[in-house]
Amino acid sequence: MGNLAEQPTEQSTLAETDCPLRQFAQVRATTEAICAPLQTEDHVIQSMPDVSPPKWHLAHVSWFFEAFLLKPFLSGYRPLDPAYDHLFNSYYETHGTPFPRASRGLISRPGVADVYRFRQHVDQAMGELLSNLPARHAAEILRRVELGLQHEQQHQELLLMDIKHILAQNPLQPAYRTDLRKAPKLSSEALQWHHYHGGIHSIGHGGEGFAFDCETPRHRQFVEDYQLASRPVSNRDYLSFMVDGGYARSELWLSDGWAHIRQHGWNAPLYWSRHEDTWHEMTLGGPRPLDLDAPVCHISFYEADAYARWAGARLPTEAEWELAACNQQPEGNFLESDHLQPVAAESGEGPSQLFGDVWEWTASAYRPYPGFRPLEGSLGEYNGKFMSGQMVLRGGCCATPQRHIRATYRNFFQPAMRWQFAGLRLAREF
Amino acid sequence: MGNLAEQPTEQSTLAETDCPLRQFAQVRATTEAICAPLQTEDHVIQSMPDVSPPKWHLAHVSWFFEAFLLKPFLSGYRPLDPAYDHLFNSYYETHGTPFPRASRGLISRPGVADVYRFRQHVDQAMGELLSNLPARHAAEILRRVELGLQHEQQHQELLLMDIKHILAQNPLQPAYRTDLRKAPKLSSEALQWHHYHGGIHSIGHGGEGFAFDCETPRHRQFVEDYQLASRPVSNRDYLSFMVDGGYARSELWLSDGWAHIRQHGWNAPLYWSRHEDTWHEMTLGGPRPLDLDAPVCHISFYEADAYARWAGARLPTEAEWELAACNQQPEGNFLESDHLQPVAAESGEGPSQLFGDVWEWTASAYRPYPGFRPLEGSLGEYNGKFMSGQMVLRGGCCATPQRHIRATYRNFFQPAMRWQFAGLRLAREF
Amino acid sequence: MGNLAEQPTEQSTLAETDCPLRQFAQVRATTEAICAPLQTEDHVIQSMPDVSPPKWHLAHVSWFFEAFLLKPFLSGYRPLDPAYDHLFNSYYETHGTPFPRASRGLISRPGVADVYRFRQHVDQAMGELLSNLPARHAAEILRRVELGLQHEQQHQELLLMDIKHILAQNPLQPAYRTDLRKAPKLSSEALQWHHYHGGIHSIGHGGEGFAFDCETPRHRQFVEDYQLASRPVSNRDYLSFMVDGGYARSELWLSDGWAHIRQHGWNAPLYWSRHEDTWHEMTLGGPRPLDLDAPVCHISFYEADAYARWAGARLPTEAEWELAACNQQPEGNFLESDHLQPVAAESGEGPSQLFGDVWEWTASAYRPYPGFRPLEGSLGEYNGKFMSGQMVLRGGCCATPQRHIRATYRNFFQPAMRWQFAGLRLAREF
Amino acid sequence: MGNLAEQPTEQSTLAETDCPLRQFAQVRATTEAICAPLQTEDHVIQSMPDVSPPKWHLAHVSWFFEAFLLKPFLSGYRPLDPAYDHLFNSYYETHGTPFPRASRGLISRPGVADVYRFRQHVDQAMGELLSNLPARHAAEILRRVELGLQHEQQHQELLLMDIKHILAQNPLQPAYRTDLRKAPKLSSEALQWHHYHGGIHSIGHGGEGFAFDCETPRHRQFVEDYQLASRPVSNRDYLSFMVDGGYARSELWLSDGWAHIRQHGWNAPLYWSRHEDTWHEMTLGGPRPLDLDAPVCHISFYEADAYARWAGARLPTEAEWELAACNQQPEGNFLESDHLQPVAAESGEGPSQLFGDVWEWTASAYRPYPGFRPLEGSLGEYNGKFMSGQMVLRGGCCATPQRHIRATYRNFFQPAMRWQFAGLRLAREF
Repeated sequence: MGNLAEQPTEQSTLAETDCPLRQFAQVRATTEAICAPLQTEDHVIQSMPDVSPPKWHLAHVSWFFEAFLLKPFLSGYRPLDPAYDHLFNSYYETHGTPFPRASRGLISRPGVADVYRFRQHVDQAMGELLSNLPARHAAEILRRVELGLQHEQQHQELLLMDIKHILAQNPLQPAYRTDLRKAPKLSSEALQWHHYHGGIHSIGHGGEGFAFDCETPRHRQFVEDYQLASRPVSNRDYLSFMVDGGYARSELWLSDGWAHIRQHGWNAPLYWSRHEDTWHEMTLGGPRPLDLDAPVCHISFYEADAYARWAGARLPTEAEWELAACNQQPEGNFLESDHLQPVAAESGEGPSQLFGDVWEWTASAYRPYPGFRPLEGSLGEYNGKFMSGQMVLRGGCCATPQRHIRATYRNFFQPAMRWQFAGLRLAREF
Repeated sequence: MGNLAEQPTEQSTLAETDCPLRQFAQVRATTEAICAPLQTEDHVIQSMPDVSPPKWHLAHVSWFFEAFLLKPFLSGYRPLDPAYDHLFNSYYETHGTPFPRASRGLISRPGVADVYRFRQHVDQAMGELLSNLPARHAAEILRRVELGLQHEQQHQELLLMDIKHILAQNPLQPAYRTDLRKAPKLSSEALQWHHYHGGIHSIGHGGEGFAFDCETPRHRQFVEDYQLASRPVSNRDYLSFMVDGGYARSELWLSDGWAHIRQHGWNAPLYWSRHEDTWHEMTLGGPRPLDLDAPVCHISFYEADAYARWAGARLPTEAEWELAACNQQPEGNFLESDHLQPVAAESGEGPSQLFGDVWEWTASAYRPYPGFRPLEGSLGEYNGKFMSGQMVLRGGCCATPQRHIRATYRNFFQPAMRWQFAGLRLAREF
Repeated sequence: MGNLAEQPTEQSTLAETDCPLRQFAQVRATTEAICAPLQTEDHVIQSMPDVSPPKWHLAHVSWFFEAFLLKPFLSGYRPLDPAYDHLFNSYYETHGTPFPRASRGLISRPGVADVYRFRQHVDQAMGELLSNLPARHAAEILRRVELGLQHEQQHQELLLMDIKHILAQNPLQPAYRTDLRKAPKLSSEALQWHHYHGGIHSIGHGGEGFAFDCETPRHRQFVEDYQLASRPVSNRDYLSFMVDGGYARSELWLSDGWAHIRQHGWNAPLYWSRHEDTWHEMTLGGPRPLDLDAPVCHISFYEADAYARWAGARLPTEAEWELAACNQQPEGNFLESDHLQPVAAESGEGPSQLFGDVWEWTASAYRPYPGFRPLEGSLGEYNGKFMSGQMVLRGGCCATPQRHIRATYRNFFQPAMRWQFAGLRLAREF
Repeated sequence: MGNLAEQPTEQSTLAETDCPLRQFAQVRATTEAICAPLQTEDHVIQSMPDVSPPKWHLAHVSWFFEAFLLKPFLSGYRPLDPAYDHLFNSYYETHGTPFPRASRGLISRPGVADVYRFRQHVDQAMGELLSNLPARHAAEILRRVELGLQHEQQHQELLLMDIKHILAQNPLQPAYRTDLRKAPKLSSEALQWHHYHGGIHSIGHGGEGFAFDCETPRHRQFVEDYQLASRPVSNRDYLSFMVDGGYARSELWLSDGWAHIRQHGWNAPLYWSRHEDTWHEMTLGGPRPLDLDAPVCHISFYEADAYARWAGARLPTEAEWELAACNQQPEGNFLESDHLQPVAAESGEGPSQLFGDVWEWTASAYRPYPGFRPLEGSLGEYNGKFMSGQMVLRGGCCATPQRHIRATYRNFFQPAMRWQFAGLRLAREF
């Protein structure tokens, strides 16, 4: 690409800037920079149903602009290929019939070059639209452009997750990049507890700036006193759990989790493997010896929950997490840090690494906030319809664009999923 | 049996009575009364993995007393057959290896008569234990007897759910009983809304009397103002949803629900079938024309949620439900009413039918209350380990023993399950 | 029952006897004698999709007489219950829609007593029909009665196979009967080879007496010179194969077989288990130490084929088998011997134990003979439609009624099936 | 590529030529010509477990030479990448652990360019070996080179089958090539019957020239008089079967076939689709209206068998087919004809189109010939271990290299498979 750190990182929303086109160009360029180190063949693979081929991501994020901006608002817009509307619709049932998700890896055409032509076609049309905003719809257009860019940023992270999973299937264990920034030589600090006082607090997004519908409305919640760990659980911590028989002791596990780890033979996080007496992990930089000081990563909710029980603690609720995070700047090890891997961090005054490194599993099921209203129309399918069977994660990770994250941001995955960069932080009562 | 209505119904907990033995005998007798109308063959069937053969229920509830009371506390106790400890362990992994749940229907022996011998063996030993309480453990024993009886009451409801499911597989559509109490001739009232004021409220069990660990601790929650419907959704209401294309409109459904109803071809509640232009439903009294005024029953969380969205409303949270119910007596159409089917009810001052008739799906995932601590030892597996992937239902149903229910009672099922007697009540914001 | 040995054993076909009614009564009585030792609960279990609940067998064989004799030929016949025509139709698609095979274990009603009432109803009507044969259809009726009785005899063997499988699922390992005839104390003879000269030979059924359509027409086949082992492979022989790594050496296995044993973790015949250093097997008389001199039993075609390859030999074709058997009397260890388990036998002049003890897997796929014509009408579904994906077995077994077997008899199972009493005999070139 | 017709077609075996190297080069070039029209992305797709990604084919056929020639016979040979020995081993269990077949589509690296480098590496080493044959092993080497080239020719056909299947998954229905030779404008002749006299005949390969082990030994078989249709069943014929309810009449089908077509919803051959009232089929040249005069293609054994039963005929045995074909030249519509699609043909004296166009399903299960011995060592896994669960097809097809086919050639597929170019020819008794 070469280096994601070289991408510009101005933090602002479209509503605040006089140049949405520049933001548009930046986000689109970052997506392409992420795919630059790939071989053509890498773009085609769907290594499990939850993974999408990189070329599908490249096309789908463009489809989003076509479907929700160009077709409704750019008069005279002509699609490059009408068939793409079906092929690259992810899950918008009210927009048409989406191409089956599990079959995305069966479609060799359009090829990578065709997909880049599609991107250029959309970019050019978006340039027209944004250079000449129809006054009557300007506000709605800018709102949707913002949403489309946030959407593309989500897919930037998904691309990195999926690329890692794709390459990790290969016995050759190819590296995505060999020029990633190295981890600092730091020891993980001794775990300490930060105290928070309970009471009625407001959580959720309420102010200016972009947020997804599922972060709203800002609302009150009563929270009891609680403590939060000063840092995420480290690989060293997690190895202690493993050595203590963590994966073999049913009493530590939720019933679903116990069934799952036995059925799938799990006895370590995803991407870990043992060579003689040393644990290694597959990273975007290829296989590496495990960094004991880095936050544990690529664990499921079941594993996070079992670890917490073993440690005599629990996972924080999303409200507890948000209260701790809402006064911190969203800074940390993000996409732009160009580690693309969680690393140990210096400790500070408050809890460290709330933002970046690893998404932190919370104790909260992903459900609507009181008074939640999804967006109107097909865009209402973006978040709301996934509010069952998933758990909330908070804080972003080493593959998240920094500008994309907020303290109120709600990520969500099924409890058995672990190809995302997910770890945990402990909480407990006073 | 004949008639469940003839069973005594005194409401008290063991702690309050001077006669735990009489309570023990009553609960045990009710279980056997439930099975009395069955043929021997009916006791053997496992019609799906979630269903257990009735003779397994009869044995398992006895195993509970043997494992948690007789073996630890009755000196000199000798099991009738040591193999039963494995065969009738449901899911207590720390107690030994449970016999695989999905294989319960493959075991013809011990037969029904053997299982009744096991029950007598346990009853006699429990008689000894309760008649001669060892002083040092008296409190713990009474606590566990109470738990064992509550457990057996849960299985009374499960027996009726499972018997219904078993008989409904049969093209002959046999009735479980032909002498059930008839539904009253009542029209369902027009739906009205009751208003509740928000604020900090305490929910969960905190006082005297029995409750499961998952109902504790009593804790504070902030609730916004809300409205609750005066009665459950009726079959007539639900038919309007169906006629309006409810099962064919993706925008009404959670994504998981939409996938599920398409994969399984669902287009009506479980047990419904259409003959010419009339809907019928299979009941424990055999097939019957649908009672339009009765609460809709045997729907999944997905269907309840879709109905609520169609109706412009939502499901209540469990806190909202509990606040409305906590001042009502737990009276209604329960097991003892001997309908074994939801029926229309007279309206009263507050919301009607909060208790009995149908379990009401709530908007709340089944997760631990703040500060939750499971019971010590193997009994800690009773509830806590199921706190993922399930939704809370409230209020009991027409197959629940009346003494078993409370306003704080939390039932839970996976969102796709619908062989339990489950319906819904609408909620909305002011 | 008590004892299957007490059943009469006259050998004749209906066409040759003046008393079809007596034969009818005998066969029907034997079926009931087989079920007599069962508990009611045992009748209900379907332990895998290929197994049917014993009460289903009892009803289905009666359905056969109702569907193919009483309804077409007994004027005024009234079914006991019209629904049975669907419930007990096994696979006759042209007769109506069969109840789904894999769901036979979900139907508790009609119960065992009802099924016996159905049997009596059919028996009485068959008595009427046979006592007063309508002249115009007498020949066809007698042909179908013969077929119905042969059919019921097949189900007698299936009943014993299925009962064994059902009871073997149970950790209690209950015995079907404890009064079975004991195995003789014999050592298996040293294996010798019998030589057969090739040339054009006729195989298949051609003369008088009953045969299934699939045994016809008698036709010519060219066979090369070959040798056949003097006895079936014994348990002792098979243990040598196991000790020599038979289940771990891919080069001994067909590709499908190798995949199958790895997927299912097979490392011994069905019903074998190892306790300390001794192998035991589950039998209809309960668990027993392995009889090393008895023929190996309950192996799949894949295992038989792998053993033969290991032994430097091969399985015989069905023509080779038939040529060796066609001059022997069909005598041996059959149902009437009341062992219900293969046993060692004295050696004789020719190959021993060609008939009885274990079905012998052949190298031949079950395909139509040249010029094969299935029966007319629905009865044509009896055999012909199964002529793909199955291998031929020959000679009958310890659960086969003696009168049921012939040298031309073709049994057939999918190559992975092994709950039937199946073993092997080696063949090789000169 | 452009055009497969331009490839040289000399017919000879290595043993007969003084230039094995030239033959080697020709076969290797044809493989690459087949892949030339593909995009890089097309090389990566595995559209079902039976399909392999084209780049896997390209590598695997090279692995064959490396594993069985270069490593054992070329002193000093160094593999390009030692990992390839695992990645490109198809199913040779005695050679090492093959990479799991169903995962071939998950491996993006080595990419297409790397695979071509591997081919060049192998080609160069093979050049060395063949230019300087070590005298002691010359015969064995030439035998294996011949086998390796025959193997690569098989994969040429597999490549075309798999490419067709891959492109057909795509709603865009891309053409593999748009310059294929057009079908001649011919009407299919009226079907006539050719008579053959029975007796003892020899079948199988016995003379000079290459054959696979499974075609040997040449042996005697007795065959009754029979008739064979003058041409394959045409699309027009097959449509009559469909119009006559062929896919809805259970009496026409083998039981396995009936279950299969209902489970998969089959009601026409693979690649057929109906647009308004016209049937179209997907071809390697893209979608086309159905050519009614061409042989029906892409049907399973089940469909071929059902059609034959509907037509009052049957499939020929492989012996019957071979007797009819052994006096004909193996000429017809092969790979080199560059139709890559079956076409109508002129009638001749004997049965037409025995060779080429479509593989003809026979009535014969794929089992060893009497006296069959597989090759020694790992090469013995080539054919013998697949001799269960498959049916024989004869005659080659429009994607088979002409030099690859013989009258004795035995192809084999599971009865439900239909992505190969398979049709049928009718047979019957006199």
